[in-house]
Amino acid sequence: MRKEDKILLSHGNGGRLMQDLIADLFLKNFGNKKLEDQSDSAILVIDSREIAFTTDSFVIDPLFFPGGNIGKLAVCGTVNDLSVSGAEPMFISVSLIIEEGFPIKELEVIVKSLAEEARKANVEIVTGDTKVVNKGKCDKLFVNTAGIGRIRPEKNITGRTQIINPGDVIIVNGTIGDHGMAVMNARESFNFTTPVESDCACLDQLIHEVLEQTGSVRFMRDATRGGVATVLNELTAKIPYGIEIEEDAIPVSRGVRAMCELLGFDPLYIANEGKVILVVPEQESSLVLEIMRRNILGRESSIIGRVVQDHPGKVVLKTTTGGKRIVDVLTGDQLPRIC
Amino acid sequence: MRKEDKILLSHGNGGRLMQDLIADLFLKNFGNKKLEDQSDSAILVIDSREIAFTTDSFVIDPLFFPGGNIGKLAVCGTVNDLSVSGAEPMFISVSLIIEEGFPIKELEVIVKSLAEEARKANVEIVTGDTKVVNKGKCDKLFVNTAGIGRIRPEKNITGRTQIINPGDVIIVNGTIGDHGMAVMNARESFNFTTPVESDCACLDQLIHEVLEQTGSVRFMRDATRGGVATVLNELTAKIPYGIEIEEDAIPVSRGVRAMCELLGFDPLYIANEGKVILVVPEQESSLVLEIMRRNILGRESSIIGRVVQDHPGKVVLKTTTGGKRIVDVLTGDQLPRIC
Repeated sequence: MRKEDKILLSHGNGGRLMQDLIADLFLKNFGNKKLEDQSDSAILVIDSREIAFTTDSFVIDPLFFPGGNIGKLAVCGTVNDLSVSGAEPMFISVSLIIEEGFPIKELEVIVKSLAEEARKANVEIVTGDTKVVNKGKCDKLFVNTAGIGRIRPEKNITGRTQIINPGDVIIVNGTIGDHGMAVMNARESFNFTTPVESDCACLDQLIHEVLEQTGSVRFMRDATRGGVATVLNELTAKIPYGIEIEEDAIPVSRGVRAMCELLGFDPLYIANEGKVILVVPEQESSLVLEIMRRNILGRESSIIGRVVQDHPGKVVLKTTTGGKRIVDVLTGDQLPRIC
Repeated sequence: MRKEDKILLSHGNGGRLMQDLIADLFLKNFGNKKLEDQSDSAILVIDSREIAFTTDSFVIDPLFFPGGNIGKLAVCGTVNDLSVSGAEPMFISVSLIIEEGFPIKELEVIVKSLAEEARKANVEIVTGDTKVVNKGKCDKLFVNTAGIGRIRPEKNITGRTQIINPGDVIIVNGTIGDHGMAVMNARESFNFTTPVESDCACLDQLIHEVLEQTGSVRFMRDATRGGVATVLNELTAKIPYGIEIEEDAIPVSRGVRAMCELLGFDPLYIANEGKVILVVPEQESSLVLEIMRRNILGRESSIIGRVVQDHPGKVVLKTTTGGKRIVDVLTGDQLPRIC
């Protein structure tokens, strides 16, 4: 990163440039162990109690999309970040930056979604902030949510990447790429005939069931910005092994597949907002799959790959045609403003 | 609030319209006791420990102003919100929304300010988020900080407004209006010859010293958006008494006074970012003032008024010329984007 550089859209896409920005600027200056973990939530200790703490700003365009709106998205994003840390989501804050002239009617719909989704996930919205900026100085509405959850000590799965072994399986709870493609479709009005709907959902129940009924989850991360490929690359960076995934095994809906083919996108890099990646030992995988498939949000849970001895640090895709290719960290521009 | 209405700048100024928006939209939909308190922080109980939790988004224009920048401001705002709740600020999150093309050099200065101010206030930046939006879709940089602090049970001053009595004195820790006028001056390039500098500062030490050495503080609130007038009006809404303040007793710097006179602003409504309003019993006021004046951020602490039996619910100003006027809740437009 050179000092004369300017921020690019790719600095926000979850890929290589964003990782560089985080390392060169944020970690260097804010540096502490909690931040370096770069998990979805920071794990804090207050009077010997473990608390998970997370934040996300949402700048999605358009605000409304098939399957949700920015309000639902903001709650789900924060609830999921807490859940994958093994925390029980408890409290969230909601901070709004609103463009002058924004219709109060639309704001009301979004506020009701925030409230409804929070109720469903059993979290309380306890504090907030509202700022209004002049017309043209922000795009309609940005939402920030921060969240606090209680870590149940026996469920604290941070640091378990150390016990990941070759043979461990990679599970995802359903089709990938739905959120990004639904937003893209809503933004650009491609009007694809096969409907694509965002998977935006709070996964706290699903995750709770898995953690409650098994003791074997070694890694868990929601695959949002940068998609499944980004999560798997972040994981291989932490372990001395490689990851192999099978194209045939990765669930992709017909609509997403069609859109991706036409537009030249790879579903592995497309954002999800209701998908979680788990790593579990092979011998426990059927139990985990069984538990997940009982939940409506995990009905299509599948094993998509494995941790392997080969190519440490690399994620490799076995293609449908029998070839192999490296699934690298995202470098160029992908879709901006999908969350 | 009518459904066909649009969001106005005044919905974000801390005054009447903002209160209506909060009541009609947020409290109605998110409604819970913690939110209704409308304090600076929500007080949460996690495993029988009391935690303060707060959030603020900063959309200040310009990003750099005499006395600070958006980074310092964001840390101070959140630290102060925690401190006035009687909490020990511990952890903060930093979430950035950056406009494409923003110079990385400027971002670095802001990040360093965030880090430095956090270090000074002894809080850790533990989690964060970065979003980049297309050029023209946000104004340079918006920052959200959320914060967590531990309430020291003996210092929990929430709910003490119930023991406020006529005769209790209102104290402020120094000159008012400096932040708003400094930002205004920097934005509009008025080039007033008397320099005006923002009072932006973390008040955690000052507040800690007062709470540590006295047991008598009955109310404490930092006077940010909407200024001292807004804090006092929020207070009179909670007690069955009135408040009387004396124009002569209110510290206003020469520069702020000059700017306000020329531009037609009332310093009572101008934002501060390093000023706290305290209510204490009269017999303890000299001790409190003594403690405050020992701290560099409280050197000019003064009694500016009193709680009175008269005009319950109203804040009345005794003017220099001997007149009296009601200091009402802010209704029209004041300064947008000063925090």
